[in-house]
Amino acid sequence: MTTTIKLQPVLIDGQWVNEATSHSLSSKDPNTSESIGLSYPVSSWATCELALRAAHRAFQISRNLEPSKIAAFLEDFASRIETDRDELVQIAHRETGLPKSPRLSDVELPRTVNQLRVAAEAVRNQSWQMPIIDRKANIRSCYIALGPVVVFGPNNFPFAFNSISGGDFAAAIAAGNPVIAKANSSHPATTERLGQLVAQSIHATGMPTGLVQLIYRTSHEDGERLVADPRVGAVGYTGARKAGLHLKAVADRVGKPFYAELSSVNPVVFLPGAFDERCDKLIDEYATSGLMGVGQFCTNPGLLLMVRGPKTDAFVAGVVSKYQSAPAGTLLSESVENSLVKSLEFLTHAGAECLTGGTKLAGARCAVANTVLRITGEQFLKDPHVFQTEAFGNAVLITVCDSLEQIVRVIDSLEGNLTGAIYSDTQGSDEGYYAKVADALQQRVGRLLNDKMPTGVAVSPAMNHGGPYPATSHPGFTAVGIPASMLRFGKLTCYDAVRESRLPSVLRDTNPTGKTYRCIDGVWTLE
Amino acid sequence: MTTTIKLQPVLIDGQWVNEATSHSLSSKDPNTSESIGLSYPVSSWATCELALRAAHRAFQISRNLEPSKIAAFLEDFASRIETDRDELVQIAHRETGLPKSPRLSDVELPRTVNQLRVAAEAVRNQSWQMPIIDRKANIRSCYIALGPVVVFGPNNFPFAFNSISGGDFAAAIAAGNPVIAKANSSHPATTERLGQLVAQSIHATGMPTGLVQLIYRTSHEDGERLVADPRVGAVGYTGARKAGLHLKAVADRVGKPFYAELSSVNPVVFLPGAFDERCDKLIDEYATSGLMGVGQFCTNPGLLLMVRGPKTDAFVAGVVSKYQSAPAGTLLSESVENSLVKSLEFLTHAGAECLTGGTKLAGARCAVANTVLRITGEQFLKDPHVFQTEAFGNAVLITVCDSLEQIVRVIDSLEGNLTGAIYSDTQGSDEGYYAKVADALQQRVGRLLNDKMPTGVAVSPAMNHGGPYPATSHPGFTAVGIPASMLRFGKLTCYDAVRESRLPSVLRDTNPTGKTYRCIDGVWTLE
Repeated sequence: MTTTIKLQPVLIDGQWVNEATSHSLSSKDPNTSESIGLSYPVSSWATCELALRAAHRAFQISRNLEPSKIAAFLEDFASRIETDRDELVQIAHRETGLPKSPRLSDVELPRTVNQLRVAAEAVRNQSWQMPIIDRKANIRSCYIALGPVVVFGPNNFPFAFNSISGGDFAAAIAAGNPVIAKANSSHPATTERLGQLVAQSIHATGMPTGLVQLIYRTSHEDGERLVADPRVGAVGYTGARKAGLHLKAVADRVGKPFYAELSSVNPVVFLPGAFDERCDKLIDEYATSGLMGVGQFCTNPGLLLMVRGPKTDAFVAGVVSKYQSAPAGTLLSESVENSLVKSLEFLTHAGAECLTGGTKLAGARCAVANTVLRITGEQFLKDPHVFQTEAFGNAVLITVCDSLEQIVRVIDSLEGNLTGAIYSDTQGSDEGYYAKVADALQQRVGRLLNDKMPTGVAVSPAMNHGGPYPATSHPGFTAVGIPASMLRFGKLTCYDAVRESRLPSVLRDTNPTGKTYRCIDGVWTLE
Repeated sequence: MTTTIKLQPVLIDGQWVNEATSHSLSSKDPNTSESIGLSYPVSSWATCELALRAAHRAFQISRNLEPSKIAAFLEDFASRIETDRDELVQIAHRETGLPKSPRLSDVELPRTVNQLRVAAEAVRNQSWQMPIIDRKANIRSCYIALGPVVVFGPNNFPFAFNSISGGDFAAAIAAGNPVIAKANSSHPATTERLGQLVAQSIHATGMPTGLVQLIYRTSHEDGERLVADPRVGAVGYTGARKAGLHLKAVADRVGKPFYAELSSVNPVVFLPGAFDERCDKLIDEYATSGLMGVGQFCTNPGLLLMVRGPKTDAFVAGVVSKYQSAPAGTLLSESVENSLVKSLEFLTHAGAECLTGGTKLAGARCAVANTVLRITGEQFLKDPHVFQTEAFGNAVLITVCDSLEQIVRVIDSLEGNLTGAIYSDTQGSDEGYYAKVADALQQRVGRLLNDKMPTGVAVSPAMNHGGPYPATSHPGFTAVGIPASMLRFGKLTCYDAVRESRLPSVLRDTNPTGKTYRCIDGVWTLE
């Protein structure tokens, strides 16, 4: 007897299409480890090919669309997400275990909606295109749409970084590109629901039907073929390092921009004066940030560096106490749980002392006890490669160094990270130390913070959610912060002696909106 | 009996160092095929390691230098090049066969000097850092120096793209990075002379001694190890496609930005109205541009597309006549000559009709007869991969199509190119055709031109000397045009709640120069 599993359809060219396959995936409720009851297809190459064709056709339209039309689409989609809030939050909560409130409903969903609206504003304004006009030479350049973007979303933000609603999606669409969204396997139903809303928005705002495709999984081979396809303009990938590097290699071979966010331990340095001044506050701030989202933030402060001093033990005990008293949150999936336990075993096996936690909690719920590990700076420097292993989840590694000089050596041994934070006293006694630590740290990170934890990633034009490899795959771009994040999906194009009537509106003599910043003969102006 | 060859020294950390090796290279005068009499070492890994150490040490200083100091260095170097003009031109002429005047002395050398001075101005002004300030969130970002840059210069511009004086060099240094220059093997003596001037400038302006290193060649293995080294921030490569892709793969594997300019046939489309209006002028313009620098420009208009019409044969005959009557210039090297002959054989074997030229000229001089090949659009579309092979040198391929639609199909079959040009009539009869052709072409090229040949690459802030792969390795960057070209060698860095006194000067509340454009709360301003 064969059981036929009903598979949810994929979204291709505006249609929900059923796949004829027996390969499927389904997500589980990490609070109960029970299936949520829906199965999703592993798409065939034939489906990928249809997705590519639809995206390619849509690109021929989308890249020439009036900015106001793309903006209207993004705004319509944002509104539909808002209207659908209860349902979306319900589904996402079930699939990810993230709390409905405040996290999903009051923080992440509004952030997602806001991102889409800020992107809409950026499209309308057109300043993102960075128009540069040299009137004397009659040479003009700007960024234009690059081509369909394949977006792989991560597990940790089912709305704000979802491949079909998140930062990469918003940036790619806003820059005039169709998207082929590959759902994260840990929240397919959330992604499907967002896909339904996106399909409605495409219809309602008259977008080309192939503006957005949604698939759930492919074979590794087809995934590689997809990102390497000549019809694809770029790839946005946020997720596990190994799979990301594999896809990146394929894209690199054919010269395709592959924007990856792979891993980061986000070093935090507490300078001596800060300890003297506000040890208790540091305990609070660090523990709160480290446990935020059950430690599953890209910017989780996973590596703490400090110099051994009179308050060291009290501080460590304070963090341990916070980690022990806080309930261990539900992790996103069994896979996150397994991977966290494995990382912790790896680190303790390498010599890290486990001060609390370290093991899976009993029961069906995906959860690991809040974990604090400790090593010395000497240990770290003996094997920096090992001790900067990311333990994704509710675990931190406190590295107690002999001296500030040792902290600098530890920093120099780090790979690229998204963020680095330095806490110092408010009266200036740490200033000399600060200079040395900051000088080393800013070479290793995309964002340097003072007296602030890295877990907040504001959607600001000045934000850099990026960093040297392997935090990301290119040190010159950010994945958060509009309009800067849109440049990843733009093609720099120069118009040399092109007749005025043939220029993109953003490069003509008259400012297209009256509000578009353009650099004309070396002067940034609205004129 | 062993003959000991005296080898010229390499420049490491401010010192001219002799290499203990018997592996060497030397350049020849392409006008006589005689050696110019100097031998250069193939450097060992030990030398590469010294170069890396010196560059790394220098970077710790250069990235924090006052902009005015870097500017002073660039200006000092520019002046030394000007003062040394006669000697430099003499050496470069001998090694490259390029005419002393106007080419080397009156065009390329002044361009090189100008580039260095424009770069100096950009450093002083600091606008290149793209400072973005969000006052409310107190988040501020800008580009800062990325790390030592390895520059591989091409054969075709011994000054303007030389690894130790050209565009990549100027951009890398201006962004605060040391350079490890790898001389092009076809003009080591020119590069050595420039290296002597650079070393003087480093000394005279008090730069860190390791700001510039110069080596001439390494083994392939050591070259790969060099670009992959963690101390290297980025690589600039202009040259042959195969070697470039090999190095790129190595850099990609370790997530290192590798800016390559690899090959381009630079399609030119003559629309029917342009023919009707000014056929003779088109013949002139095309032949002049195609033979400029003996066709050895990156932007050489190697592929001409036109629709068969009443003037086709007259036009083709006109170009052939120009190519026959113009003297065949001296090619840069035997290697360019061999490669050109091979490409021409490849294209004719594939079915291109050789209307004139096609073979090496008799004698010791490196020269190939000026060559015009012709095929039909149908032939092109049968094997687009073959017919867009770059024949680097004084050769062009005229593709006569059946229709405008066929031209668009040919364009759609092209890889990425640096440039694409469209000629149309001045009265508007080509306008409908133009839209279709331009729409296709602008997706394939970095720079779109109207009624203008692509061989002029103005040093303008609006210039894009870039384009989709494989013209370059990233569609978002330009190698010419300051300050834009500097961004390739910058690291985007965000300062989140960083105390004002600790910020880079460009991000503090007060404008550091009064002339630095910064985007403050969404407004580009000098305030």
